[in-house]
Order: sequence, then C-alpha cells, then structure tokens
Amino acid sequence: VPRFHVPGCEPDATTVELPADEAQHLTQVLRLGIGDAAGVFDGRGREWRGVVAVADRRRATIDRLVAVPATPEPAVRVTLGVGVLKGDQMDRVVRDATALGAVAVAPVASSRVTVPRRAWSGGAADARWARVAAAAAKQCGRAVVPAIAPVAPLEARLAAASSGGARVVVAVEPAVPGAAGVEALRAGGRPHDVLALVGPEGGWAGGDLALARAAGATFVHLGPRTLRAEVVPVVLLTALWVCWGWD
Amino acid sequence: VPRFHVPGCEPDATTVELPADEAQHLTQVLRLGIGDAAGVFDGRGREWRGVVAVADRRRATIDRLVAVPATPEPAVRVTLGVGVLKGDQMDRVVRDATALGAVAVAPVASSRVTVPRRAWSGGAADARWARVAAAAAKQCGRAVVPAIAPVAPLEARLAAASSGGARVVVAVEPAVPGAAGVEALRAGGRPHDVLALVGPEGGWAGGDLALARAAGATFVHLGPRTLRAEVVPVVLLTALWVCWGWD
Repeated sequence: VPRFHVPGCEPDATTVELPADEAQHLTQVLRLGIGDAAGVFDGRGREWRGVVAVADRRRATIDRLVAVPATPEPAVRVTLGVGVLKGDQMDRVVRDATALGAVAVAPVASSRVTVPRRAWSGGAADARWARVAAAAAKQCGRAVVPAIAPVAPLEARLAAASSGGARVVVAVEPAVPGAAGVEALRAGGRPHDVLALVGPEGGWAGGDLALARAAGATFVHLGPRTLRAEVVPVVLLTALWVCWGWD
Repeated sequence: VPRFHVPGCEPDATTVELPADEAQHLTQVLRLGIGDAAGVFDGRGREWRGVVAVADRRRATIDRLVAVPATPEPAVRVTLGVGVLKGDQMDRVVRDATALGAVAVAPVASSRVTVPRRAWSGGAADARWARVAAAAAKQCGRAVVPAIAPVAPLEARLAAASSGGARVVVAVEPAVPGAAGVEALRAGGRPHDVLALVGPEGGWAGGDLALARAAGATFVHLGPRTLRAEVVPVVLLTALWVCWGWD
C-alpha cells in the first residue's frame, strides 16, 4: 500500500487532505484513483490506512482512516551527528540514517569540513535534507521522519548531548588512542539516548577528538580498512543496533 | 602513500613495472615523480613500499621494494552472494564489499532479478566489477582484491557453498518464517567460510528461500524497516563482523 506523509494529520482524524506535493505524487506519479487503498503517516510515529476519496489534479484526500500499528522504533534514540559532506553524499547519509532508525540527523561543522559554507548555510540545505528524510521514511515504511538539526559546531553538539544525558559515541580510525572495537559498546548496557558522531570527508582533527574526549565520548573503530565517508554512518548505525538490538 | 595494484608482483621482487593503467594513474593523475614514495600490492595479500624509479608517459617502475605488513584480513572468509542489481548499484555493492572485507563477490541470477540478462552476460560486466574491486582495494588500504565470481543461479551458489563447507546466511524480510535477528549468528561460534546472500531489487522468491532452507541456511533479518537493495550488503557484512570480530 503506498504511504503518504501528512504532518498535520490529527490522531482521531477519519479523513485527511494531502499536502500539494503528496497529492501530486498520488495522482500524477502513482496514478491512484478513488477507492484505492492508501496509507498515511504523520512523521511523528502515527500511521493510518484508508481509501482515496478525492484524486483531482490538485487535490487528494484519503478517508475511512483507521489507525494501524506503525513500524516499531528502536528503543535507543540515536542522533547521527555527521561532519558536513557534499550534496549527494549528504543526501545518501540522510536517506540511510532514516532507514536505519536514527531519530535525528545533526550536520556538524567540524574543523575539517571541506564543503564550502555557502553550500550549507542559509537554510536551503536543511530544507532539502528534511525532504530527503521524509521521502526515505515513505520508502522504508517508517512512521517517523527524523528531525534535521541546524548545522552546528561540534562543541554545540556535544553540549546538547551532555545536557540531554546522551551517551556520545565517535567513529574514529583504529590508530586513535583509546579506540576500541564496537563490541565495547555492549559494556554499560543499553543507553536511552545516543549521539553517534561520524567525521567529514577529511576525518576528525586532533582538536575535535580532544573535545569529544573531554565530553566523555566512547571512541570506536569500524575495522582496519578505510571506508568511504558516506558509508561510515551505515556501518556505525548497524553496529549500534547489533550491539543494542534493532528495536 | 599512494598504492598501486600489480597482480604479477613476485614475493621477492625488489623492483616492479606497473601495468599500463596504473602507470598512467601514477604519472598523469597523481603526478608522482622519480624518488617519490609509493606502495605496491598484489591483490592476494602481499604489500610493499618502494620508491618511484621511472615515471615516463607510458612506463612507471617502483624500486627499492621492501615487504611490509598488509592490512589484516578478516578471520572469517565471507563471499557476498548478491542478486544482480543495476549497474551503478552493483558497482557500489562491489566497492563496499571490498572495503568491508569480503573475499569474493558472487552475483546471483535469482528468479526475481529484474536487470536484463544482456546487461550482465558475456563477461563485460564481470570485467567491470573486477576493475571496481581493484580500485576499491586501492582506496580502502586493502592488499586483497576480492574475486568476482561469474554470475550463476542460486542453486549453483548453494552447491558451491555446500561442497566448500561454508555456512550460508541469507538476509530476509522479518516476516519470513524462521527469520531471526543477526544476534543469532553468534550461536555456533565463528565459522571459517560463509556465503552471505542478499536478494535482488525484487527480493527473494519463495522458491529461492526453499532452496536456501534445504541447504541449511540461517535466515537473518536486518530490522523492521525496508533497506535499499544496495545498502543491504553493507548492513549484513557489518552485522557479521560485529558478531564475529573485524579480524
């Protein structure tokens, strides 16, 4: 059943009008018509099934909404903090982090970010990543769309993790002092909140690692081979779920 | 230090001439000159450091070769069997499987493969995937280039695994009867050889699963969300290493 993202759908709604872009997707791309089955999710964990009631050029509504159980969310709330990568890499990271259950993606302006500031400041990049996250949630069957945090320096990310009581995990090269295999994450049990940090294309600078260490971070390495920057988040998130359970 | 793939490099060589494409990479792309440090690996696990001795338009040699320890290979020999995907997806799978330590990639012509046969028969695709694997080994610091097996039906892959004594692991949807979380792989200890199977874009057909079940396969799921086909190998290989150790 095709699913549509309707952020404003009320918990007790029995009918809902789709936002313009979702209506267009329903009518122009998927070419659904009146009476076809359709799903709705609000991006915050609620999901419904219903039937297409209006499918005009510009409007689409789903009625006979019935709440259904959503795909379960992981018990550990993981925010993926990632050094800003270039456009297509960042899109892939947001897409994969969504399918791998991150609750938020927080782009980090760490010292070795090589993407020019104009490419990610001003809000256009944030809006784009939010659209990618919503599209990925549709595709992967998830009822939650991860929040996209504004790009912020590493210090700000670490401070937010500290005040929120989140455990900090940093993916590092094996040679970094204190780096352990991901199995080390099993020690200390399953946390509630985690900030999982992945460096930019150029990796972490010594100063970044010092900041993270001061914030009590756990340094984990992901094996002896060098992974492409946009693959590291997939490997790290997978490792977290294998250690702590998928849900 | 930039590394070059020289399949024919002899174990006791002190000087070696690069193949034409690697020579071009050295002189035209990296613009190395006489006296620059360079690495050599043979794609079968041997690695050397040396110095550029000739860097002409068409020829490059490295001399003063000294054997150095290669990046360690995983203790578990994993062959990734993957339902044939389209070109760019398959390239990505080969690249990531190389960086994640697979010893071989074996494309599988399972029943739901949607890529037309002409796109992968005839040997051109195999040759391309071999080039992608070699380039990925250069980039990820690995001295082994995974073998690319010829495209074969699932039956042939399972038979090869059986005669080689390999454990068979199949990534499936959570709803498949017998599917367990990847933690189940810890039971029974660390195997020597594994065939890790990932379906094509359309997933496994019931007949595929019956064949795998008859071959004694373990069915694992990778969480409740639907992952993109080219991401599944990354997630599965990572899960194997977390369960069995990176090296």
